Amino acid sequence: MDKHKLTRPVPPVGLLLSEAVNQAHGKRFDDLAKRVGVPVQRYTINDVQGKTDRIHAAFFSRDLYEGSSLHEPGPLSNAFFQLVNNAAQLTWLHVCSAGLDLPQYQVAIKRGIRITSSSGSTAFPIAQTTLAAILALSRGFGHWLPAQARKEWVPLTGNDLPADIETQRVVIAGAGAIGQALGRMLLAVGFQVTLVRRVAKPIPAFDHIIDYSQLDHALSQCDWLVLALPLNEQTCGLINQRRLALMPAHARIANIGRGALIDESAMIHALSQGQLAGAYLDTFMTEPLPESSALWALPNVWITPHNSAASKGHARRVVSLFEREYERWLDEQQTRFTK
Amino acid sequence: MDKHKLTRPVPPVGLLLSEAVNQAHGKRFDDLAKRVGVPVQRYTINDVQGKTDRIHAAFFSRDLYEGSSLHEPGPLSNAFFQLVNNAAQLTWLHVCSAGLDLPQYQVAIKRGIRITSSSGSTAFPIAQTTLAAILALSRGFGHWLPAQARKEWVPLTGNDLPADIETQRVVIAGAGAIGQALGRMLLAVGFQVTLVRRVAKPIPAFDHIIDYSQLDHALSQCDWLVLALPLNEQTCGLINQRRLALMPAHARIANIGRGALIDESAMIHALSQGQLAGAYLDTFMTEPLPESSALWALPNVWITPHNSAASKGHARRVVSLFEREYERWLDEQQTRFTK
Repeated sequence: MDKHKLTRPVPPVGLLLSEAVNQAHGKRFDDLAKRVGVPVQRYTINDVQGKTDRIHAAFFSRDLYEGSSLHEPGPLSNAFFQLVNNAAQLTWLHVCSAGLDLPQYQVAIKRGIRITSSSGSTAFPIAQTTLAAILALSRGFGHWLPAQARKEWVPLTGNDLPADIETQRVVIAGAGAIGQALGRMLLAVGFQVTLVRRVAKPIPAFDHIIDYSQLDHALSQCDWLVLALPLNEQTCGLINQRRLALMPAHARIANIGRGALIDESAMIHALSQGQLAGAYLDTFMTEPLPESSALWALPNVWITPHNSAASKGHARRVVSLFEREYERWLDEQQTRFTK
Repeated sequence: MDKHKLTRPVPPVGLLLSEAVNQAHGKRFDDLAKRVGVPVQRYTINDVQGKTDRIHAAFFSRDLYEGSSLHEPGPLSNAFFQLVNNAAQLTWLHVCSAGLDLPQYQVAIKRGIRITSSSGSTAFPIAQTTLAAILALSRGFGHWLPAQARKEWVPLTGNDLPADIETQRVVIAGAGAIGQALGRMLLAVGFQVTLVRRVAKPIPAFDHIIDYSQLDHALSQCDWLVLALPLNEQTCGLINQRRLALMPAHARIANIGRGALIDESAMIHALSQGQLAGAYLDTFMTEPLPESSALWALPNVWITPHNSAASKGHARRVVSLFEREYERWLDEQQTRFTK
């Protein structure tokens, strides 16, 4: 083995992990590396101080994100990215989020480091949370829960009865993993569904797919608008005051993409003035949502703190996606050693 | 026509309707009767006073139920059943409810009058409401909505993260229209589902069907127990203190059948002591639920006022079911005239 080392002076590649992931999965990652034939040295935040030049790959796992919000990284996240941003040899970063618009990623993105995301790992929990909110607000829980808080038995009757689910159309902007998973669930529950995507190519199970040139018309006919889109130059401010005004007064909005997809002030105005019937919001222009925001107390608005993906299995799914990318990356490293 | 009447001294059969149903559907009911060839005279509550002996059939439509609760009939219901109970010639009564256990039906039942129910007309809205509550409580809205009321941004993290939907099993006692509709929706959303029925015969789409001899074992393994059963001698008190104690502490109950299916005091005790994690309840031992009930303010209990079926389309579906039964009944009457 010593002789082997002498003939191969290349040092092992360094992998930066959280303490939690290192303890739970480190040995399995080693086995993977051994199978591929690449010597890997694992580092954690505590033991890599002063040795950041040994880091070639880094894994921003779910536990490191905890305590963060979209616009305010938490202490673990800050400690991790201070190392990552100083790691001159870093070639690859895997992150637990689906989007790459988090502020703490931007230095690495500008440096041209390859970043792989955990897109898809949250599709089912986010779709399930969104379905819960859409269905609960459509059925009448926006009335029943406040009545319960007052200990009042007030059945919905007459004109207050909710429209049948089978008569309601949900327009989902975004046909990615979340939009499709949510769309399939909505169909199974009885809703009508329109998917909006850049090109109106068919997707199995959906009978109504349109492109963005038809969005305005779809908005004028919808009962729900769901935003399941990434934030970029094309989507920023997609739902502006003009488009909000196209929606019927009985319609509601669910935003599980990014706050900046909607003109938030215009939406607050529409919700306050009865131009929209309600909303389910998981994401906001500023996160955490400031205590001063009017959204907190609007009736028929349900708020979750950018937490719709919350699920015990998420961290594990992120690790699985990391491992898939890790194998690919190891294969590439392997060529370094066999050249 | 006069001659016809002379040779046929049988008076027209009398049909008692609500004012609203008479106005909206009366003419269509006449057309139906004409097609079958039976002379029918429609009556409403206001114009039948003193002529109750002319009523042969009566339709307890949705509008007559409004203002009622399970144990306290409203004024329209009382007025209607005072006539019905005095109608000596009455042979058939169609009711808007799925169950026949309402107190106002009991005189007619004892008289041996044929009663047809609107079983099935509420299956989809009840299943949708129940799915909304099960999914919302399973995902975290029992935490998020109270945090929103305090204007607090508190994401679920670490050990507070909800278990993935795909790991949760819902045991549905009752495989009627509601239980099956709910079961199919739960499967589409990712839950595991066990159906409990008297005989464990297969039903398409369900891979786990058991009979009541296996209920205790299923309870010990469930995340949710749904009661979608009618109330009768076999089901009254089905979920007693012993069975509640079999359920895991993280499990929850949804009762959309009848309050008396559960030992309500034992359930309140279990919910208060952390032996159960929560409940969605639409039906209670006493309805309206008294203000003094501890259920109103228990955390993680969502209450709807026996209103899970609320939907604009319900009254219309009840009328459709009535019409189906009406045609059958007219056919029978026809034999009276052609004998």
